[in-house]
Amino acid sequence: MRVLVYGSGQLAQMMYLAAAPLGVIVSAVDVVTETVVNPISKKATGVPLHRAIEESNAITVEFEHVPEHLLLDADKSGKLYPNVASILAGADRVREKALLVKNNIPNCEYLLIDHVDQLDDVVERLGEKVIFKASRDGYDGYGQWRISSASDLVNVRKDFALLDLKKVPVIAEKMMQFDREISLVGARSQDGQIACFSLAENLHHEGQLHVSVAPITQLTEALQKKAKDIFETLATAMDYVGVLAVELFQCGEELYVNEIAPRVHNSGHWTQQGCSTSQFEQHIRAVLNLPLGSTELIGTSAMVNIIGCTAFSRDLIGIPDVHLHWYGKEVRKKRKMGHINVVAKSHASLGKKLKQLIEFLPVEYFPKLESEATRLENEKN
Amino acid sequence: MRVLVYGSGQLAQMMYLAAAPLGVIVSAVDVVTETVVNPISKKATGVPLHRAIEESNAITVEFEHVPEHLLLDADKSGKLYPNVASILAGADRVREKALLVKNNIPNCEYLLIDHVDQLDDVVERLGEKVIFKASRDGYDGYGQWRISSASDLVNVRKDFALLDLKKVPVIAEKMMQFDREISLVGARSQDGQIACFSLAENLHHEGQLHVSVAPITQLTEALQKKAKDIFETLATAMDYVGVLAVELFQCGEELYVNEIAPRVHNSGHWTQQGCSTSQFEQHIRAVLNLPLGSTELIGTSAMVNIIGCTAFSRDLIGIPDVHLHWYGKEVRKKRKMGHINVVAKSHASLGKKLKQLIEFLPVEYFPKLESEATRLENEKN
Repeated sequence: MRVLVYGSGQLAQMMYLAAAPLGVIVSAVDVVTETVVNPISKKATGVPLHRAIEESNAITVEFEHVPEHLLLDADKSGKLYPNVASILAGADRVREKALLVKNNIPNCEYLLIDHVDQLDDVVERLGEKVIFKASRDGYDGYGQWRISSASDLVNVRKDFALLDLKKVPVIAEKMMQFDREISLVGARSQDGQIACFSLAENLHHEGQLHVSVAPITQLTEALQKKAKDIFETLATAMDYVGVLAVELFQCGEELYVNEIAPRVHNSGHWTQQGCSTSQFEQHIRAVLNLPLGSTELIGTSAMVNIIGCTAFSRDLIGIPDVHLHWYGKEVRKKRKMGHINVVAKSHASLGKKLKQLIEFLPVEYFPKLESEATRLENEKN
Repeated sequence: MRVLVYGSGQLAQMMYLAAAPLGVIVSAVDVVTETVVNPISKKATGVPLHRAIEESNAITVEFEHVPEHLLLDADKSGKLYPNVASILAGADRVREKALLVKNNIPNCEYLLIDHVDQLDDVVERLGEKVIFKASRDGYDGYGQWRISSASDLVNVRKDFALLDLKKVPVIAEKMMQFDREISLVGARSQDGQIACFSLAENLHHEGQLHVSVAPITQLTEALQKKAKDIFETLATAMDYVGVLAVELFQCGEELYVNEIAPRVHNSGHWTQQGCSTSQFEQHIRAVLNLPLGSTELIGTSAMVNIIGCTAFSRDLIGIPDVHLHWYGKEVRKKRKMGHINVVAKSHASLGKKLKQLIEFLPVEYFPKLESEATRLENEKN
C-alpha cells in the first residue's frame, strides 16, 4: 500500500519509518517544487505528482499550510484525509475560531479584526492584555503583537494601517491566565472510532515547544475525559480522519482550546517510545482505514526538542531508555533538528533521567530542561 | 553517519528502519550483483561499491554466507564488524565446532567426516541417532541426513560417495534429547561491553523458526546467567563486535550450544516491541561504537513468523499490542514474508492474545501457534 504525504519534513520522515513495517510505502510531496520525494533522502523519486496521486491508497498532509490549489487537486482523488475543510481550519484562525464557537468549545475570548477601526473597542471588550495573531501565517508584515495596556495600541494601529486586513484579518485574543499548557493528540478512523493518547504537558520558550511530558502530572480521569470530550466533539463535527492535535490551556479544572493542528504533532512525539502505538503509525492506520492501535502507556515519557544545535555527544543514548530521533537537516537558528524521547517508570524517575541527560547537552539550547527535571523529581507518583 | 550492510533482505531493511532515527543511513549490498541498494526499495543507489565502502563509518553483514572475497575486500577498510573470522565461524560448522571446543563450551557431541570411511565408527562413537550436516551451506548434493539406526547408514554412505568431502566436510552430530530450544541474542561493543536480551524460547517446524517467546517460561536467574556466561566467553574469544545470536538446547539445567549466528537473528525480532532497545538498533550502535542501549523488557513477547503466505487480514493489528512487520517480498513457498510481534503483561495474557490472533490467520501456515497459545495460557506467572 502507498500513502502520499504533502510536506517533506521530519513528520513525513517519521510517518515513513512508522509505515514501512506495515508494508506501507510513504512518499512525500515537496510543496514548493511540487515534486514527489523520498521522505528520508528528500531525493526526487521520478514519479510525477499526478501519478503518485493515482497510485496512492491514501493522501495526507504533514502540515496545514499546504497551498490550497494542491489540496484541492489532491482532494479530487477522493483519497485525502483529513478533509480539506479540516486542514484549512488548522491553517486559518478565523475558520478555527468559528469551528470552536459553533461547537460550543471553550476557547479564549476574541475579536475578529478586519478593519483598523475595530481596534477602538478591543480593550473595552477583551481587557488590556491582548494578543493579536494573523489569521493565516506566512504573510509579509504579519506576526504576533502583544499589548498589556491600552496605550500599547498605538503601535499596533500603526502596523495594521499597512496591512490588507480584509484579505488577511487578525484575531485579537484575550491573554488568559492559565495554569499550564497541555495537549491531547488522538485519532479518528474512517468509521468514527476514536483513540486518544494521554494528555501531554508542554513547555514553550520563545514560541517554540521545548519539552513535553506525558502523562501530565496530577492527571485525573475527569480531566482526561474533559479533553477527550472536546476532541470527540471537534473530530466528529469535522468528520475528521487521522491524527489531530488539540492544544489546551488548563485553568483549574477548566480547559480552553488554544489551537488545533490537523496532523501529527510535536507534542505527540513521545508516543514513539511511550505508547504501544506511535502517533505516526496511528495516523497511517487511520488514513488507510486500518484498525486503530492501542494507546496504552508504556511508561512516563518526556520529549525534549533539539533546537538550533548539533553540538552534543551522541553518547547520551547510553542512558537507559533514552532514544534519539535525528532529522538529518542542516542546522539553522531555532530550527528543530531532532528530539530525544525518555521513558521512565514514574515522573520522579523521569526527572532523574532528565538530570542525567542534561550532562550531555549544551544547556543554553535547553533553557527549560533543568527546572522541569527538578519539578518532576519532586513529584510523588 | 553511514553503515553498509552486506545482504539486502529483511534484516538489512529492519536495520535501516532502526538506524534512521539515530541519523544513520544504512545502505545494503546485493551480494549477487555486487551493487549498493536502498534496503527498502532494493533499488540501486548508483553509488559504486568501492565508494560506498569508503563513505561508510562501519560495515556489517545481515547473513553469514556473504562470498568470502567480498568479506575480505570489505575488511581491508578496517571498518568491518564483526570480524571476518566471526562471520566465517557462523558460516562453517567445522570452524564453529572448533571454536566451541577450544573455549570449552558444551555442545552436541560430533565427528568431523572428511572421508566416507569415517562413517564406520559413527554409531559406535555417537550412538544410533545421528544427524549429518554439511559444514557449509549451498553446495549441490548436500543437505541434512538423519539416521536412527546403524542400518540407515547405507543410504548416507551412498550419498557421501558422490561428494567431495575433503572440500566440504560433514559434521556428524549426536541427536540430543533436549527439553526445548532457546536462544540468547546479545551484543558486544568495541570496548568489550556486553548487553544480552532475555532468553527466548523457539518453536521450529520443518527446519524453520515459527514462534519465539521471550522471556522463556520458567526462566531462572541461574539459567539466564549460564547463557550469558556462554555468550560472554564466545564473544570475547572471537573479539566480536555487534549482535550475536547463540542457539541453545536446554536439557534440565544444562545448556548446549547448537549453533551461533554472527548477526541479528530471527529469534530476536521480538525486541522491536518487547525491549527498550531492539536488536537492530543495538547492532547499529555496536558497529558504530555508540553506547549500547538498555535491554530491559517492556513486557512478555511473542514473535510469530509469517511463512509462505500473504492471505490474512491486516485487521489483526486491531488487537492491542499486536504489531505487523511486513517485508514486502513476493510470496514463495516457505519464504519468510514478515512477522507479528505481540506484547502482553504475562505469559498467560500473551497466550490469550495469541488465541485472538489465530482468528485472523490461516492456521495451515501457523502449525505451532494454537498449541503454543494454549501452553502459555496455562502459565502461572
